[in-house]
Amino acid sequence: MTELKILREARRIIHNHISYTPILYSTLLNEKYGAKVLFKCENFQITGSFKLRGAYYSAFKKIQRTGKTSLAGHSSGNFAQALAKTAHLMGVESTIVMPGNAPEIKVEGVKRWNGKIIYSENSPQSREAKLHEFMDQHPEAIYMHPSDDMDMIYGNSTAIQELIEEESDIEIVIVPVGGGGILAGAALASKNLLPKIKVYGAEPSGADDAARSFRTGKIVPSVEPQTIADGLRTQLGKNNFPIIQSLVTDILTVSEADIITSMKDIYQYLKIVIEPSSAVPLAVIRKNPQLFSNKRIGMIITGGNIDLVNLAQIFK
Amino acid sequence: MTELKILREARRIIHNHISYTPILYSTLLNEKYGAKVLFKCENFQITGSFKLRGAYYSAFKKIQRTGKTSLAGHSSGNFAQALAKTAHLMGVESTIVMPGNAPEIKVEGVKRWNGKIIYSENSPQSREAKLHEFMDQHPEAIYMHPSDDMDMIYGNSTAIQELIEEESDIEIVIVPVGGGGILAGAALASKNLLPKIKVYGAEPSGADDAARSFRTGKIVPSVEPQTIADGLRTQLGKNNFPIIQSLVTDILTVSEADIITSMKDIYQYLKIVIEPSSAVPLAVIRKNPQLFSNKRIGMIITGGNIDLVNLAQIFK
Repeated sequence: MTELKILREARRIIHNHISYTPILYSTLLNEKYGAKVLFKCENFQITGSFKLRGAYYSAFKKIQRTGKTSLAGHSSGNFAQALAKTAHLMGVESTIVMPGNAPEIKVEGVKRWNGKIIYSENSPQSREAKLHEFMDQHPEAIYMHPSDDMDMIYGNSTAIQELIEEESDIEIVIVPVGGGGILAGAALASKNLLPKIKVYGAEPSGADDAARSFRTGKIVPSVEPQTIADGLRTQLGKNNFPIIQSLVTDILTVSEADIITSMKDIYQYLKIVIEPSSAVPLAVIRKNPQLFSNKRIGMIITGGNIDLVNLAQIFK
Repeated sequence: MTELKILREARRIIHNHISYTPILYSTLLNEKYGAKVLFKCENFQITGSFKLRGAYYSAFKKIQRTGKTSLAGHSSGNFAQALAKTAHLMGVESTIVMPGNAPEIKVEGVKRWNGKIIYSENSPQSREAKLHEFMDQHPEAIYMHPSDDMDMIYGNSTAIQELIEEESDIEIVIVPVGGGGILAGAALASKNLLPKIKVYGAEPSGADDAARSFRTGKIVPSVEPQTIADGLRTQLGKNNFPIIQSLVTDILTVSEADIITSMKDIYQYLKIVIEPSSAVPLAVIRKNPQLFSNKRIGMIITGGNIDLVNLAQIFK
């Protein structure tokens, strides 16, 4: 299959199982930022983030290929809920390794869809080790990576596919970058459907491993990232990095203060609940008027899962 | 004109000037509350509340009738912005009396649409006095009441008209009650379009003047109301009270704690930003399962204008 055919297949396979999310904008917000910004609102997606798109398509393809009957992965965040919900939709089992300090709200989100939880220590190494231990004992389980997997990337691409179907005159797409799964997916969809479009990654300067990887041409590990954008603390992988390198124009970084300012603007002008990661692309616009002034820009609100006590801390 | 014809005229006149707002629901929220709730989201309305509907239609009719060329009113809240925006849309002037302690965000919202502000003392009496003084000196100005005016009520009715057009099988409508303008409008639309529907008012127990008025058959003044639902502190008027008396099934009250619980649920499940008043009808469902269990219920999210520092206080 050509790449475009795969993208279209992903769109077709998820179509009846995933919410077709709305695209919002605010005239006043556009005036304030000096650009025309269209927000594809994955905070309204089932499980509250875009992660269900990749999880669903990836599970569908992997079950089809292997005939296996359960899904397994590790996550402290949105991927955990997406994986449990995917398994629930498909009528298979899911097992998710979560750190012992995972917020109660995320744990509940997994249990709601009958996901089995294995608790690990809080380090990524401990999570990986626990998951490998489980995989060794359960040959019927499919290993699901949250971002660095081509099926996952194709599934994620459907968010930008939907955006471009409705808004074919966008000139630029800006997407947050953590593990790189949504940025790679957005880049593939953009370049296949609108070849002239420019795609940017947006990253907190306190977790700028992707920007440094992009500049040096080598994956830089994410070491002790410091940011409230908890979805963006992970590092790029070998599948999404080459896609990002070849299709993305640049990865731009912003400070924590910039992220909070744009997060407040999204709450006040768009009236939607988002997690901090979703505000990073808007912050990038404000800091780079030379690139974005008066442009028509597509953006993904990647998720809306935030503990209200944390929200109060940010806005106080 | 028959009442139904007037309602349809209001719908037609505002149609091209006002946002057609989305209707949202959450399967998980429905499970939690044991009912099927459809939220007509006026927090996404231009100026962030339903008030623009009534203001627009009322101004249109009054300008048509009188030939006058400016609008005047008093408000500490959402009506101020709606009035200024209406004048801006119609190319006429607006003057709004606001209390000196009005939040900066509301003052900015009025200035944005070139509304002229006259500051008063903080009491309702002082606001009224300042407005009457202005009216005496400006015979070209139209007096715009925020809720107790038939044009305003017909304009407000368009929110429920739109809801019923999309969702014709709702059995119950629940709407917050402060001044009574949205409740009276919702009742008129409901009874004209779906005569079997039941309409309830929802009110904070710390500002229960409407519930007491409803029970005693006489307008009870709102004296020192105590509630975070700042949009619901005003009292009923002589135009909307008879409509409410004849068409509304009951007015139900809930505590501040109930309001906050339902407000948090709306943020977490629907992922939308609302002001406290908008959460009161959902709180009413949870307290009255004998009335609402398993029913299909339409609700208006009346507005989403909340200062983020206040929001942090509520969620901390």
